[in-house]
Parts: sequence; C-alpha cells; structure tokens
Amino acid sequence: SDPTAKKEEKKPEAPKELSYSQRRSLFTNPVAIKLLEIMERKSSNLCLAADVTSAAELLRIADQLGPKLCMIKTHVDILDDFSPEFVAELEALAAKHDFLIFEDRKFADIGNTVVQQYEGGVYRIADWSHVTNAHVVPGPGVIQGLKQVGLRKGRGLLVLAEMSSKGNLAKESYTQSAAAFAVADRDFCFGFIAMGRLASATFPAGVDPQSFLYLTPGVKLQQGGDALGQQYDTPDAVLFDRKSDVIIVGRGIYEAKDPVGEAELYRAAGWSAYQRRLQ
Amino acid sequence: SDPTAKKEEKKPEAPKELSYSQRRSLFTNPVAIKLLEIMERKSSNLCLAADVTSAAELLRIADQLGPKLCMIKTHVDILDDFSPEFVAELEALAAKHDFLIFEDRKFADIGNTVVQQYEGGVYRIADWSHVTNAHVVPGPGVIQGLKQVGLRKGRGLLVLAEMSSKGNLAKESYTQSAAAFAVADRDFCFGFIAMGRLASATFPAGVDPQSFLYLTPGVKLQQGGDALGQQYDTPDAVLFDRKSDVIIVGRGIYEAKDPVGEAELYRAAGWSAYQRRLQ
Repeated sequence: SDPTAKKEEKKPEAPKELSYSQRRSLFTNPVAIKLLEIMERKSSNLCLAADVTSAAELLRIADQLGPKLCMIKTHVDILDDFSPEFVAELEALAAKHDFLIFEDRKFADIGNTVVQQYEGGVYRIADWSHVTNAHVVPGPGVIQGLKQVGLRKGRGLLVLAEMSSKGNLAKESYTQSAAAFAVADRDFCFGFIAMGRLASATFPAGVDPQSFLYLTPGVKLQQGGDALGQQYDTPDAVLFDRKSDVIIVGRGIYEAKDPVGEAELYRAAGWSAYQRRLQ
Repeated sequence: SDPTAKKEEKKPEAPKELSYSQRRSLFTNPVAIKLLEIMERKSSNLCLAADVTSAAELLRIADQLGPKLCMIKTHVDILDDFSPEFVAELEALAAKHDFLIFEDRKFADIGNTVVQQYEGGVYRIADWSHVTNAHVVPGPGVIQGLKQVGLRKGRGLLVLAEMSSKGNLAKESYTQSAAAFAVADRDFCFGFIAMGRLASATFPAGVDPQSFLYLTPGVKLQQGGDALGQQYDTPDAVLFDRKSDVIIVGRGIYEAKDPVGEAELYRAAGWSAYQRRLQ
C-alpha cells in the first residue's frame, strides 16, 4: 500500500484557536462585540469582582484599577449606601477607563418576576449594567423575561453553566440545558459563567463553542478555597488549559497590600495565558 | 397453613397523615413552629404573593387581605419606593393580622456573597423577613452562608426543590440534592418550595417527609399559564392530591375585581382540601 496515503488518515484537526478580534464576527450582541474590542485594546481579560459594601470604596477601586480591567463585576445589593448618584459615577468611570459593568445579580425566578426585578425596583439594573447573568433552573422563561427588557436597551446576558463552589449542581444535563437555552436566545445571551470553554458536545449539534464567551470566577494566583465552599484556580489553568476568555478575580486583588500592582500581575498573567493559547 | 397469619402479611400502612398541630413537635426551627400555629389559629394555609411595584400598594393589600393569610410573600426588589419605613409598617401589619413575612429572594450565590446579600445592602432582609429561600445550584455553601446570618436572628429558610415554570431543571437528582442539603441544616431549613410533599425516596434514608413543610407557587382556581412559562394548578391538586402545606397565590387574588372575596375563596378551598386530607 501507498505509505503517503496512510499518512493522510490522521485525526481531524482541532478547530483553529481564534483571537478575540477574529471572534467578533461570530457575535451579534453589541455588548459581546464591545467586550472583545476592549480586551484587545487594553490587552486585558481581567474582570474585577468588586465585592465591597461601600459605594465610595467601590468607586475608589474602580478608578484606581480601571485601567487594568476589561470589566467590573458588581453586587449592588451588598452596598449599604446604593444611590442613583453612585450609578452615574460608576458609569462615568466605565467611560473614562474603558471597561464594562457586569451586575452579578444571578436572576433565578420565573419570567414574569425577573422582568420586574431587572427593569424596576431601587436598582433599575437594566438601565446601567451592560451585562447581567441568570441561573437556568427556572427554565427558558427566565432568559426570555430578561431579554424582553434588556435586548432593546443593548444589554447582554451571561448564563450560569458551571460554578466554582464546592458541591454545586451546575454540571452534566444541567450544563447542557444552560447551553441549549443560551443558543436559543443568542442575540441576547452571548456567553457563560463556566469553569472554561464548554465542549462541543455540550451544545446542540453544529454550534461552535468559540461563538460564545466564557467568564470564570474563583480565580487566584494561588490555588485554595474559603470557609464557605468557594474554590480557587489559577489564571493559567483557566485561560490556557480550559480556554476560558475572562478571569474574574476578587479578594485576590482588592484585599492585597498593593491592589494596583496585584491587578497588573493578574492582567499580565491572563494576557500571557491567552497569547500562548493562540500559538 | 394458618389463614389468619396470611392476612397479616399485608403491605405496610401508608404513614398516618398528621395535622399541622401534630407536626409542630417534628420541627426545631422557631419560624416553622410559628407558621404551623398561625395556620391552625387562622384556618389558613394561604400565602399571598404580593408582586406589586409600589410600597403603598403592598401595604394596602397586606392590611386588606392579612386576616385571610398565614404568610405574605414579597419581592422587595421590584418596589420602586422601598424604604426602612415601609419595612416597619409591613412588620406592624404582620403583628396586627398574625401573618409571617417571606421575602422570595431566591438566593443563589456562593456562601461568602449570600452572607452579605442577606444581612446587608439597602434591604437588610435578615432584619425583617421571617422566611427567605435559596436555590441549591451553588452547593451547600449557599445554605451555610445564609444560616450563619439567619439562625441567630430566629429566621428560617425554604429550599427550592421544585419549580412551577415550564422547562425548569429542579427535578430528579437536583431535587434529591436539595432535600439532602436541607436535612443537613434542618435547624435552619424547615421546608421546601415544591409542587407537593417530597416523596420519602427523595430524602436520605429515615427522614420523615412530614417533618418538613412544603409551599407551592403557581396556584390558581383555574388551571392555565402565562406568556413567560408560569404554569398554574388548583388548590385541591396541590394540597389534597400532592399533599403540599401552603398554597402561594398571586395574580389570582390581587388582580381580581374583589380581592377580599377572592382571598376568602382561596382560603376556604385550601383549608377544605387540607381537612379532607386528614380524614
């Protein structure tokens, strides 16, 4: 037999690893496109989880660390002194430092309720948060409700497909449902909270996993955990080994002695892991 | 062979159906005990889902319908004008009309975050809500975090074991995990959001399903659904057929032409279904 013919019977090549820029054309959601542009412009795939309880402190951190970040993740419902003025100042800082705002609300109710929680109440999240997220346990109605509010405001949604906490139930068929729901409303759902890029097999047939973005919480330069079940992994494990797109770092940065220096360490580590992935 | 001996080889009897009063001794959580007492005292297993967007409207409804209810379920994050004064007035109405307050927050984050969301922020939920609830998708840390805040304040938690919305993922192994997590912290978790009483087989071995309470949303006198996936069932199906303990009714009452008359219809239907179950 012809030995050259045999050589060509190799396994199908792994899909080409695309850069953030190259992936822009795979998205229609405007927030996804803006995030990809910011990441390239600032050489940063670092999102800060700003889990502080004072609005003034959050604004101080956002101004100080903003240049290092592509995104700031907030929990406005832990702020003791939330106000519309705080929102205006945070939006001004997002414009000044070129980052997106992601209110980590983890919506998890039926469609009719999340419509009201997203657009109304004291927080009026849909008015200012470029990105929010949702659990899929209520079924597809939670996404449809949020989309009804957010799409016309140019917002985007992340679906929680996996979690970083010990003993969590976001796995297997749950993760597959999360993927299927996101695909069905992908003009609004542009990505996932996940521990890495979801495998092709997790999606309905024919969906390219690189046509969604992946944001991973529970990231620290040192592995470990906290007393209430949070588990940490490194930027390299998350971005290089598991091909996530954005690392979410909280206490590792804002509790450091030198938060700016620490943020730069995470930015550089994250960007380097991403660049090695493209080689 | 002895025919009398053969007669005794019958199937084990179904467990005796206990009244709300008889079940008090199966609980240690003070809120659970108080709820069981209120239900007997008022002949009501009706919880109103007061999903309105104005604090004044919510207080008006609570004062008007309070005598018919064992509990009022709130979403304070859809109120446009939440204030500490609103909370004080709602607490006064709860005392006046003898009902409990259940903030339907559906906590769904890691332990460290829910600690702050439950005790802090603008809403300070742990300070005034007798009962709140949590999704178990983050793992047992979500319950441990909430318990760290709520137990010393005499609060209680409901775990979402099942949901009423179309295509929801709270089923099978997810529901079993919810049951196991609740059993592990049952001094704080006294019951479930579920479509009915959970089966013995859903629990770890040896747990009596009647030693937890079951609250069921999506109840209307007419079956049906809404445009965003909510599905409705009747009081009789929920309380008699599926042996739940509390029906949660929202739009069916407060959107009726005569809310007081409608609340009385639901209270009577719910109490009658419960009483027939005991016979």
